[in-house]
Amino acid sequence: MKIKNFLNKNKNKDVVVVQGLGFVGSVMSLVVSNSDKKDYAVIGVDLKKNRNIINSINNGKFPIKSSDPKVNKYYNKSLKKKNLLATYDPLAYSYANIIIVDINLDVEKKSDNDGNLNSFNVDMSPFKMAIRTIGKYCKDDVLILVETTVPPGTCSKVVKPIIEEELLKRNLPINKVKIGHSYERVMPGPEYINSIKNFYRVYSGIDENSALETERFLKTIISTKVYPLTRLVNTNATEIAKVLENSYRAMNIAFIVEWSRYAEEAGVNLYEIVNAIRMRPTHANLMYPGIGVGGYCLTKDPLLASWAKINHFNSNDSLEQSEKGVKINDKMPHHAFDFMKKAFALESIINKKILLLGVSYRSDVGDTRYSPVEPFYMNCIENKAIVEVHDPYVQYWEEINIIVSQNLDKKLDMSWDIIVFSAAHSEYKNPKVISKISKMSNVKVLDTLGILKQKDIIELNKNNKVKVLGRGDI
Amino acid sequence: MKIKNFLNKNKNKDVVVVQGLGFVGSVMSLVVSNSDKKDYAVIGVDLKKNRNIINSINNGKFPIKSSDPKVNKYYNKSLKKKNLLATYDPLAYSYANIIIVDINLDVEKKSDNDGNLNSFNVDMSPFKMAIRTIGKYCKDDVLILVETTVPPGTCSKVVKPIIEEELLKRNLPINKVKIGHSYERVMPGPEYINSIKNFYRVYSGIDENSALETERFLKTIISTKVYPLTRLVNTNATEIAKVLENSYRAMNIAFIVEWSRYAEEAGVNLYEIVNAIRMRPTHANLMYPGIGVGGYCLTKDPLLASWAKINHFNSNDSLEQSEKGVKINDKMPHHAFDFMKKAFALESIINKKILLLGVSYRSDVGDTRYSPVEPFYMNCIENKAIVEVHDPYVQYWEEINIIVSQNLDKKLDMSWDIIVFSAAHSEYKNPKVISKISKMSNVKVLDTLGILKQKDIIELNKNNKVKVLGRGDI
Repeated sequence: MKIKNFLNKNKNKDVVVVQGLGFVGSVMSLVVSNSDKKDYAVIGVDLKKNRNIINSINNGKFPIKSSDPKVNKYYNKSLKKKNLLATYDPLAYSYANIIIVDINLDVEKKSDNDGNLNSFNVDMSPFKMAIRTIGKYCKDDVLILVETTVPPGTCSKVVKPIIEEELLKRNLPINKVKIGHSYERVMPGPEYINSIKNFYRVYSGIDENSALETERFLKTIISTKVYPLTRLVNTNATEIAKVLENSYRAMNIAFIVEWSRYAEEAGVNLYEIVNAIRMRPTHANLMYPGIGVGGYCLTKDPLLASWAKINHFNSNDSLEQSEKGVKINDKMPHHAFDFMKKAFALESIINKKILLLGVSYRSDVGDTRYSPVEPFYMNCIENKAIVEVHDPYVQYWEEINIIVSQNLDKKLDMSWDIIVFSAAHSEYKNPKVISKISKMSNVKVLDTLGILKQKDIIELNKNNKVKVLGRGDI
Repeated sequence: MKIKNFLNKNKNKDVVVVQGLGFVGSVMSLVVSNSDKKDYAVIGVDLKKNRNIINSINNGKFPIKSSDPKVNKYYNKSLKKKNLLATYDPLAYSYANIIIVDINLDVEKKSDNDGNLNSFNVDMSPFKMAIRTIGKYCKDDVLILVETTVPPGTCSKVVKPIIEEELLKRNLPINKVKIGHSYERVMPGPEYINSIKNFYRVYSGIDENSALETERFLKTIISTKVYPLTRLVNTNATEIAKVLENSYRAMNIAFIVEWSRYAEEAGVNLYEIVNAIRMRPTHANLMYPGIGVGGYCLTKDPLLASWAKINHFNSNDSLEQSEKGVKINDKMPHHAFDFMKKAFALESIINKKILLLGVSYRSDVGDTRYSPVEPFYMNCIENKAIVEVHDPYVQYWEEINIIVSQNLDKKLDMSWDIIVFSAAHSEYKNPKVISKISKMSNVKVLDTLGILKQKDIIELNKNNKVKVLGRGDI
């Protein structure tokens, strides 16, 4: 459908254009198109190279599989309302009252084979280009709402000058455009939609008018009565809030890493200890040991922050601790691999048959971006093991370029030297799974996430050998 | 009163001896002597050099001043019941059914004048000597309950062998003694008693019988129906739990330190950002900026843990991150001092009259142990400022050896070059305080803890200049 046709059918509605149709933008489009407070015409824009996503949205099939039933429900409602279109045509921006920026802004990490992060770089040019495209087409009184996680300082030092430059080129006034920042807290998984619609939001604007317009818009898509908005004084503040928030989480994970080793050395069970401490409300977010940190945010946001500290605010110091947190977390899958070899006293894993249960970075989610299972898998392959992978939520592992099995029963009917629990999907906690593995003889079982209960371990240990990361007491 | 007399008057009661009458032991004695589930005769033992504490308890004056009214209430009840005695006579141990170890175990830090922690040492000998004293006198079937924060491994590798050695010297059997570990979570302040009686506890024993007896005892002094006990598998596990718990808190503080600098550089208000992030339940324990970390626990527990990792569990690696956390926190008061000079563009503070409001390490508590105000004060003094201090909870600052003013009105009637909010006591938040300071001319106000509200800052800025640590937007 042409944009004009689409808009003719959605007359008198405010036009919202969502730039970027990834894990955030695509679902954000659904939420906006299903606002119960205002009728919007929503156009999702992505680059031509992503036309499979664009076509998918236009052809009745939502491009993201989710364990949240609301995603498909919302999509079906959008189809019925006919107020959602996807396109790669930048002309879309020219119709927009509101443009939401949901594109990626990546950090390029340079790490060695052992997972040591040697250096990193932030290339702003794809982001700048995307903003420039908006500037070339947008109305002069548009509200540009940046949701992308950006290096702090970006809205005022990058977005605003580019938009103004492009408006001036078109002989348009620059005093009417509004630029707001409000970072998303999207969590793919069973609460995907709720993580946008029913959750707290922080926002700001480059000026009072921008902040007001941003607030007005957010109130039409978020349940702000239950989850009130928080306005911060400027876009620097909200941009810092986002990266601080994720750095905190990354640090909390990094904190527990060296205590996992401690538990292994002292012969105790760190999960048991963490559970005991979590009784304290002030310590309820203490993390468990694990195979590593994945996903798009925690693996890079502390670095974005550190980069901006120096490049946008002329600091002499980087964020040493937060960078260190990322470095520690990046090493986790490598430790898990070393732990496997050491715990099972394996001199080599050549030709060992290894089954990895779970490739996603998060339980019950089909998201393999920066999954810690990836370096673990690569370590196995490079050491010449024969590795197969299963994941109920992932059919095809893009980063590795392999098919992922969906048939757990079949996989567990085969014989293995080592079975690794590498994601904490619910399916793996089914007693049938333990029962099946316990009947195998001489299989070694590595639990990288503490998903096995004490009774499971006793059961499995009858015929086999179990080791759990962060437990020295088995 | 002689111990025998005391026990004659408390016939048929189990005798509990509390070793160490400091911030934990003295209040622990009160809680045990006021158990509503069992009648105990409680004897507090401390060294002869601490006889002022001993005499104070015996002479009707509890040695610790507290904002918790329950402390004096409990003490008065103990006086009435006549079931609490203090002594330095080690013979007390020979009557004990239960001995609770609440003595200190210190870390000796070697730091330079800028607060850089160069090295540290754990001297176990005073602790060992105290345990040996117990071993020389105790019954062979006593329950020894260690509450002291110890380097993990201490109960099994230090306490047990010493007790057994001493029992053997006395030709007593070694198979009847019980050794338990249950760390306290005592918080001096308005909830002092509740932090023992009405709070979660973790416990363990060196064997099943020790764990059972420990549990039985704890159930008589703690409201375990509301705050259920958690048993861990052995004393290593509970010892690690304690130091992990405090290291987590220390790390959470250290995390925010570099973000305070970020906020100062980027010109934003970190308190505002932290408040926005704290809306997320998973981030509710994010810390605020501050003058530093004090008190007996957070300043040393990560080091105890790290020391034990190498010395008790033969690890090759220290707890690098947790040690780093302590190092960062130790530097905080020095940054606060530098910030003061920089923020007010002071080339020198020679002869400047500086008033420090608060010397305690915690709000509304009179505890100056390892207070971060100490290095801040010393920096001022070494730079030849004229410094006076006020604190409603502290009459005498032991570590510095000076009298502390209790009269805030009088201090605010004098003239100052700089007034520093160095503790967040409620008294300082009184609008009268702001009003008085705002009427001074040319005084500089440094808020190291973010206790000033935005309206206070506006008010104060009329005549004066205000700077807040972690805020670059003033």
